Amino acid sequence: MKIVIVGGVAGGASAAARARRLSEAAEIVVFERGQDPSFANCGMPYYIGGEIEVRDKLLVAPLSLLRERHRLDVRIRSQVEAIDRQNKTVTVRSLDDNRTYQESYDQLILATGAAPLKPPIPGIDSTGIYTLRDLQDADQLHAVATGGAKSAVIVGAGFIGIEMAENLVRRGLAVTIVELADQVLPPWDKEMVTPIESHLESSGVALRLGDSATAFTAKEGHVVVTLKSGDQLETDFVVLSVGVRPENQLAKVAGLDLGERGGVKVNRYMQTSDPHIYAVGDVVEVTDVVSSSATQIPLAGPANRQGRIAADHIFGRETYYRGTQGTAVVGVFDMAAAMTGLSEKVLQRLGMDYEKIYIHPAHHAGYYPGAQPMSLKLIFEPTTGRILGAQAVGRQGVDKRIDVIAMAIQADMNVLDLEESELCYAPQFGSAKDPVNMAGFVASGVVRGDHPVVHCDQILSAVQAGTVLIDVRSEKEFSEGHIAGAINQPIDSLRDNLDSLPNDKPIIVYCYVGMRGYLATRILLQNGFEVKNLSGGYKSWRMFADA
Amino acid sequence: MKIVIVGGVAGGASAAARARRLSEAAEIVVFERGQDPSFANCGMPYYIGGEIEVRDKLLVAPLSLLRERHRLDVRIRSQVEAIDRQNKTVTVRSLDDNRTYQESYDQLILATGAAPLKPPIPGIDSTGIYTLRDLQDADQLHAVATGGAKSAVIVGAGFIGIEMAENLVRRGLAVTIVELADQVLPPWDKEMVTPIESHLESSGVALRLGDSATAFTAKEGHVVVTLKSGDQLETDFVVLSVGVRPENQLAKVAGLDLGERGGVKVNRYMQTSDPHIYAVGDVVEVTDVVSSSATQIPLAGPANRQGRIAADHIFGRETYYRGTQGTAVVGVFDMAAAMTGLSEKVLQRLGMDYEKIYIHPAHHAGYYPGAQPMSLKLIFEPTTGRILGAQAVGRQGVDKRIDVIAMAIQADMNVLDLEESELCYAPQFGSAKDPVNMAGFVASGVVRGDHPVVHCDQILSAVQAGTVLIDVRSEKEFSEGHIAGAINQPIDSLRDNLDSLPNDKPIIVYCYVGMRGYLATRILLQNGFEVKNLSGGYKSWRMFADA
Repeated sequence: MKIVIVGGVAGGASAAARARRLSEAAEIVVFERGQDPSFANCGMPYYIGGEIEVRDKLLVAPLSLLRERHRLDVRIRSQVEAIDRQNKTVTVRSLDDNRTYQESYDQLILATGAAPLKPPIPGIDSTGIYTLRDLQDADQLHAVATGGAKSAVIVGAGFIGIEMAENLVRRGLAVTIVELADQVLPPWDKEMVTPIESHLESSGVALRLGDSATAFTAKEGHVVVTLKSGDQLETDFVVLSVGVRPENQLAKVAGLDLGERGGVKVNRYMQTSDPHIYAVGDVVEVTDVVSSSATQIPLAGPANRQGRIAADHIFGRETYYRGTQGTAVVGVFDMAAAMTGLSEKVLQRLGMDYEKIYIHPAHHAGYYPGAQPMSLKLIFEPTTGRILGAQAVGRQGVDKRIDVIAMAIQADMNVLDLEESELCYAPQFGSAKDPVNMAGFVASGVVRGDHPVVHCDQILSAVQAGTVLIDVRSEKEFSEGHIAGAINQPIDSLRDNLDSLPNDKPIIVYCYVGMRGYLATRILLQNGFEVKNLSGGYKSWRMFADA
Repeated sequence: MKIVIVGGVAGGASAAARARRLSEAAEIVVFERGQDPSFANCGMPYYIGGEIEVRDKLLVAPLSLLRERHRLDVRIRSQVEAIDRQNKTVTVRSLDDNRTYQESYDQLILATGAAPLKPPIPGIDSTGIYTLRDLQDADQLHAVATGGAKSAVIVGAGFIGIEMAENLVRRGLAVTIVELADQVLPPWDKEMVTPIESHLESSGVALRLGDSATAFTAKEGHVVVTLKSGDQLETDFVVLSVGVRPENQLAKVAGLDLGERGGVKVNRYMQTSDPHIYAVGDVVEVTDVVSSSATQIPLAGPANRQGRIAADHIFGRETYYRGTQGTAVVGVFDMAAAMTGLSEKVLQRLGMDYEKIYIHPAHHAGYYPGAQPMSLKLIFEPTTGRILGAQAVGRQGVDKRIDVIAMAIQADMNVLDLEESELCYAPQFGSAKDPVNMAGFVASGVVRGDHPVVHCDQILSAVQAGTVLIDVRSEKEFSEGHIAGAINQPIDSLRDNLDSLPNDKPIIVYCYVGMRGYLATRILLQNGFEVKNLSGGYKSWRMFADA
């Protein structure tokens, strides 16, 4: 058995190591175009920013280890240029001496990854415009960031853009982010990242949302970025992070089936339309586990698992890839945003029916010092309660709650199951009713019909149509800020003032985070009023209004 | 509907609040023997230690809130002394004026909790011997700890004992723990808490394991604790934390069915043998979800859920209690131990078949600064891979991994599912192959037969019976410490030295954490050797040998 692997990072490296563990006899050749196989690409922004001080830390599995320990025939600076499916060979160019040669395979694994998108903007190839894909890119940006640069413009506010912003601020640079969407971190829903946007700004990052670069012009060692809005930003350099496209050229020329967005189509064993060719990692189209639709999610975890599964299948194993959930986290200075499953915007695009709730719990018991607030959004099927997705932002414990809900999605659980989840509790670690339980309680109340909810984007039209908006917080809270048009009726005296409420109009109640609003909803419902609670209360309103 | 609830903390308070949300019309009377309903009992050690500075923080739901917001008829310092099931009344003694009276009920909920065990040791009622159950106990211990005491002896190394040790050290006291078992934290398996024991000792706590108190003697304002070993400890005061017993007296006298350990028997709706009487919280016997056997697990999370479920059932709801997993966490200075499901010792006691693996991963990507080691033990059915339990110790991220595995147990997943779990990854938060995935990989290898493992307690007898023990680490690592009787054959040159290995004897390989040992196992298996890997490697060996 001779296995040829094209690409030696995440998916390719995992496939190679797994293949060796399954077969001592196999000949395993890994072609890596760059200098370094198996490097930690997710660490590069932190190396550029200095949080990771030593470059060698990024070399997860050095060449010598792959060769000696795993007996892999790793050939670096070797570019695979073509696949001859008929004869089962690949054409390889050695980048050091420009020699080309053929290499035969029994099974071929494509792990070519995804390349940074470079849109056809005038001047995009100017000096001073960088992308970040491999260690050589990281070296360049490290040199620039530590070489006296004072400012940077980052185009694109996805994972890499946000992480680069933090790290360039850490280096003392003045950083501006330009993002076409009207929010940072487009995989998340807009209202969920407003705390992240505030935090970026208060950390010194200038945001230009809903704007885009229309031209780059080199000017005396600087770059002038012309924006669609007409503004011009003069900067020392530009980081372009507007997304990636599957590096599918080899597969395309070889006639393998591709998906709509260019990802190589694979079956659940990671086999392409040619059963002797597998593809893994960022180059493939994957199936979303929640929607069962095709998608493109370039993440390291799935890439590693897919590599393992391709190797398994080559050696007759039954493991298969179950699809991608899109579980992700990103640190933003001392905050974090995490998500799993589908966002509201993707559900809307797919035309799927959903309901959602918001909660704003502390990350551990509120009575223990250091409790940090988080905001958690849970999205679910309105009738069954099946969990469709979740998003969280905060300072601590955000990744934990999303990991827990990721498991619930993997198990196809519903929100009623989250009520019953039994999670670690001691005051430094959580609450007797963990945020996950709380989300389950609230969502289950909605599914059971005990707790009708309404959302921020419905408030204005409801009030205009005659709905009465009641703020059930204290007078003091109300006086410090409330939703326009609301009347104040504190919860503790609500029962004594039912007569003063209209019983011929719908009512929306709200409090600060939704708890008192829920209780008010229960009181009013049982007294014959038509009432809904604003999910997440005034805190959700602030996130919505600031978005 | 008139609901009477006996006990106003966790389970009772949850039942009362839930009942009110379900029915505005219900009359809800809560009898609380103490001064404070709904206080944060899990926070008391941290109040005594000063981490929680203000006592009021422990009053989660003040009396006024329960009365005004929830319109609960809460009667404090009111002890329920008897139940008349025939007439559906309880006899209540008002502790302030010693008056007794009858109160009728339609539905009764017993949330009487569990009382600290006080074994019949001579002198146990001496001055200076404290237990910790309610805020008055906390007040006393707070006064003692801040009143000039210099030393304390803690009898019992369970949750409360360990938390009190940390907090009294924080107050500057010299603390000694006496524990009958040969380990601290008896719910965990012995080898898993050896890092906790070292950490306690290096933090200044003296441990007397496998010893017990046989007498307490008051002596000039001090207490002399006589131990079974014959030693005597003179101390300023004693904290007795040797466990709790269900406070079942009311139920017992009323003729309700009790379990073997004294817990009130309930069905899945939390109904006792009298359908008009429910019981919730530490007083009930619960079903363990993994073993389906009866058990007694006094934890706050389950108590809260049970209270909610009892109220639900009173109002005709279909929710039911699914059983207890025993998910728990305890902080020990800056370390933590967490667990979910069954321990190995409980599995042995129940006679259930199991296999286990150990891993020792970093809590986030090793290449990112601040990665902390953790040790994780996963226990599963040998053939199906069904997850039976997990335990973890470390400094960071321990609660997260146990929460994730708790969800897997709730969903009745197996170890193959953990391979496929898609969890948050960015270098500050985890790894592309999260510790949970790694545990899944290793355990799945065992279940699939790819990866035969052996455990520390089998090494000695195996070597005596002729098994060859091979340390596949580097010469340097070997020279710094290895298992007696091992020979050193570094992994990278293993393939070149197969001829020197015995092919007529079984082999056990090991490395530092089990990864290189796994690779060595794969190499040797495929070359016809009979080989097993020491799960968790030399690091597991150290934990075992130190235990």
